[in-house]
Amino acid sequence: MKEKLAQRINAMLDSSRDVLAGSVDENGYPQVKALFLRSRDGLRTLWFSTNTSSHHVSQWLSNPKACVYCFDPKGFLGLLLTGEAQVHTDQETKDRFWKPGDRLYYPKGRTDPDYCIVRFTAGQASVYHNLQKETFTLPPHSPLDKSIL
Amino acid sequence: MKEKLAQRINAMLDSSRDVLAGSVDENGYPQVKALFLRSRDGLRTLWFSTNTSSHHVSQWLSNPKACVYCFDPKGFLGLLLTGEAQVHTDQETKDRFWKPGDRLYYPKGRTDPDYCIVRFTAGQASVYHNLQKETFTLPPHSPLDKSIL
Repeated sequence: MKEKLAQRINAMLDSSRDVLAGSVDENGYPQVKALFLRSRDGLRTLWFSTNTSSHHVSQWLSNPKACVYCFDPKGFLGLLLTGEAQVHTDQETKDRFWKPGDRLYYPKGRTDPDYCIVRFTAGQASVYHNLQKETFTLPPHSPLDKSIL
Repeated sequence: MKEKLAQRINAMLDSSRDVLAGSVDENGYPQVKALFLRSRDGLRTLWFSTNTSSHHVSQWLSNPKACVYCFDPKGFLGLLLTGEAQVHTDQETKDRFWKPGDRLYYPKGRTDPDYCIVRFTAGQASVYHNLQKETFTLPPHSPLDKSIL
């Protein structure tokens, strides 16, 4: 059962172009935005591309507290990761995740100052399934595997 | 153009069973959860049903700061509402929004203590469309109409 649940979580993330990312604004209000999920290492580290000028980026620069949420309403399955977001504007990281179609969002290409990468590191994962919720603390650098779910 | 955008926002919300709701946990981290949208009055007031025992309800009881997010990835359209959430456990409000199919989530029916209604009141709306963002302050009790969008 647990292995099957881990497979379902992985499949949901692998088929998700967008996931929901949460930040906290300067007045303490939660904010949510859909972001492009670029890459991930299990549930521990997720990489997103977004606009450097966006509100969620400036919110994370002053307060890195963040969450990531992904759900499959038909399968009654949800995943909430809680952790920290780090904004990367160095060219090496930007090159690593650049894709040709990104020019639609960043007309100046991979060196566009409005293109940046957000690295999200999760400390905790909550899984919603079968109308229940289970919460797991994620050990450092652990991939999503049977030992977690 | 503005009227058309308001129509698209309305159509998106009317076709959404679930929207994403944001809260802030006891450690200051943002949290996101899909909730059933039960009813709404324009963009100003939205009503959700959820479990009284859930984490987001206890978070809103101690900190009512909230947001609601809805997006259409194919249409490059997103709506972020920022405001306050109020938890209603009185029977009159619970009766008002009860639907027969709710027994799946609240086995004890409309008097189930684990069934509650959340009223979200927005103070601000941000609309994402055509890769741009526009933010509007919502006047009290204003419906979504041409004057807002």
